[in-house]
Amino acid sequence: MASTGQVIRCKAAVAWEAGKPLVMEEVDVAPPQAMEVRVKILFTSLCHTDVYFWEAKGQTPLFPRIFGHEAGGIVESVGEGVTELEPGDHVLPVFTGECKECRHCKSEESNMCDLLRINTDRGVMLNDGKSRFSIRGQPIYHFVGTSTFSEYTVVHVGCLAKINPAAPLDKVCVLSCGISTGLGATLNVAKPKKGSTVAIFGLGAVGLAAAEGARISGASRIIGVDLNANRFDEAKKFGVTEFVNPKDHDKPVHEVIAEMTNGGVDRSVECTGSVSAMISAFECVHDGWGVAVLVGVPNKDDAFKTHPMNILNEKTLKGTFFGNYKPRSDLPSVVEKYMNKELELEKFITHEVPFAEINKAFEYMLSGAGLRCIIKMDA
Amino acid sequence: MASTGQVIRCKAAVAWEAGKPLVMEEVDVAPPQAMEVRVKILFTSLCHTDVYFWEAKGQTPLFPRIFGHEAGGIVESVGEGVTELEPGDHVLPVFTGECKECRHCKSEESNMCDLLRINTDRGVMLNDGKSRFSIRGQPIYHFVGTSTFSEYTVVHVGCLAKINPAAPLDKVCVLSCGISTGLGATLNVAKPKKGSTVAIFGLGAVGLAAAEGARISGASRIIGVDLNANRFDEAKKFGVTEFVNPKDHDKPVHEVIAEMTNGGVDRSVECTGSVSAMISAFECVHDGWGVAVLVGVPNKDDAFKTHPMNILNEKTLKGTFFGNYKPRSDLPSVVEKYMNKELELEKFITHEVPFAEINKAFEYMLSGAGLRCIIKMDA
Repeated sequence: MASTGQVIRCKAAVAWEAGKPLVMEEVDVAPPQAMEVRVKILFTSLCHTDVYFWEAKGQTPLFPRIFGHEAGGIVESVGEGVTELEPGDHVLPVFTGECKECRHCKSEESNMCDLLRINTDRGVMLNDGKSRFSIRGQPIYHFVGTSTFSEYTVVHVGCLAKINPAAPLDKVCVLSCGISTGLGATLNVAKPKKGSTVAIFGLGAVGLAAAEGARISGASRIIGVDLNANRFDEAKKFGVTEFVNPKDHDKPVHEVIAEMTNGGVDRSVECTGSVSAMISAFECVHDGWGVAVLVGVPNKDDAFKTHPMNILNEKTLKGTFFGNYKPRSDLPSVVEKYMNKELELEKFITHEVPFAEINKAFEYMLSGAGLRCIIKMDA
Repeated sequence: MASTGQVIRCKAAVAWEAGKPLVMEEVDVAPPQAMEVRVKILFTSLCHTDVYFWEAKGQTPLFPRIFGHEAGGIVESVGEGVTELEPGDHVLPVFTGECKECRHCKSEESNMCDLLRINTDRGVMLNDGKSRFSIRGQPIYHFVGTSTFSEYTVVHVGCLAKINPAAPLDKVCVLSCGISTGLGATLNVAKPKKGSTVAIFGLGAVGLAAAEGARISGASRIIGVDLNANRFDEAKKFGVTEFVNPKDHDKPVHEVIAEMTNGGVDRSVECTGSVSAMISAFECVHDGWGVAVLVGVPNKDDAFKTHPMNILNEKTLKGTFFGNYKPRSDLPSVVEKYMNKELELEKFITHEVPFAEINKAFEYMLSGAGLRCIIKMDA
């Protein structure tokens, strides 16, 4: 391609300060270095994690920065040593990676790559500790190695899943993060058997993706737990059959669920990050075989606390990260689940905006409206 | 047999009061009722649980009582409805049962039978709420449905494992409780792969059986953790390759183990019941794939407490009861492991006494001498 090896000047939505609207800028995107790939982003969506680090409350702020980590795009050019991808390949950038060389990548059980595991504090590329984005020479920080709120971005090859080019990028882009996280928590970790009962704590996009996983698994009952009663109607589309609002009960929610299910659910998935929900999610599973899976990220000072007999009664507690999917090895098959209509993605997509109106996506999320807003880069 | 349907008068070691030496008495053992079996005990051994309920500290005392729950014997007669056993069958009585009808028995994952799950407070038979033991008409309480410190005892058919009659009962009797508990925790729950690293917390009989499971699994390193340095030499026989005494270190034991193993062990098994050991056992497993299994029974007021990120980093915490073995379905195959020399039982047996000297077995255990003392009923 003509642009290979050249700086590309393109549009990007830059966060100059914490919590302030993004500003559309002309940025220079340097060519990819060794093991890096430059990607033309076609569609991106907004995830809570973007908002969390954009708000930067209680964090060391890292600005100016280009956020964005759920996206779909096409390889523009590749750096030295990249053999698995070539210009024109369709890819999903992922906030965590798979180097294929470390102990984690070589373990069948882990996706927590030593080299490319999520790093929210590093705003630069691994190769040289520098940014590939600049505006009139001023470097702009990257975000979790993806920075997809830009028409072009540079990503480590280990953070790119090569997918079926027939897959519509405006749909499968949501598989880059939240939807795969929830779906994989159920399909890869909780693994409910057909006919089993599943409780989902938190009915945001991740929780609904976990419910979608339970629906795909053939769960007979999917109990949604959320403090926001407005989420219950939407949740039905994702297979949720019953609702529990902890506010409606005097007794602890794990007791409510135990009563509904003759002793507890077979599986639970916690997607809120609230430590009390985590404890409830564990205590609401049935003794003998119950499995609770924690997805939501807790606060720094939280303590998970339970009586050890709850564990000894043959319950299992597991944590998961990105649904235990290895980005490069496993995401292509998740895309295929969508292609063969096993997985429904359309219902997660509640809004669409052109790139120029990206701040609207932030407004939707901050007001709790909808699930995913697709940002169309070429519009 | 001539005795079928008749009361049998025989010798039993009766605990008349908490903590006082057992007294050899002539007891009357009633015939088995529906779904019950009368068993001639040939060998029994002493387990910590007997001592714990004999001491009866902080419990509602239930005396007079016949203790004993690790044993091997031969069926003398069977009650109405018993079709799986007949006189002459070799059996291991087990403190917990398998009715084969309840949700737990029908689940592949659980051995916590709803009907026959261990009950330490009930001193009578399920069928009529009465004891089958008496002395001059005074009922003597049962213990966990087994009461093997008697030449004859009556046991629910669901608490008897029918085993290979060629198996030496003076050896395989130890599989009734502690050894299977530790062995199964490793083989059935922790499931270490060949070449993996395993930490065992507590090097008593249960912990050493867990180590034996790790040895059988082909673990490359088995790290024993115990506060008693005297246990380390014995532990080598069970495959333990390295020792950590928490008293020798200024830093938390999970950090010591993480340093020894480049980030943590692949599996850990906690066999002490100390809540701090439980937390260490969980925190010492590697992120991404580590599995911690809790076996030891905690105090009533203990709290298991950890930072949720320890869980989210793809660690698994599981509890087990009786090594997840279903007594009737699974114990026969554990006996076969001994018969084909995969499992070594002799090294667990450190003492032998004739039945008349059963109180010596209590003395050995209270002084911490050895692992298992076999009590020979006919000697």
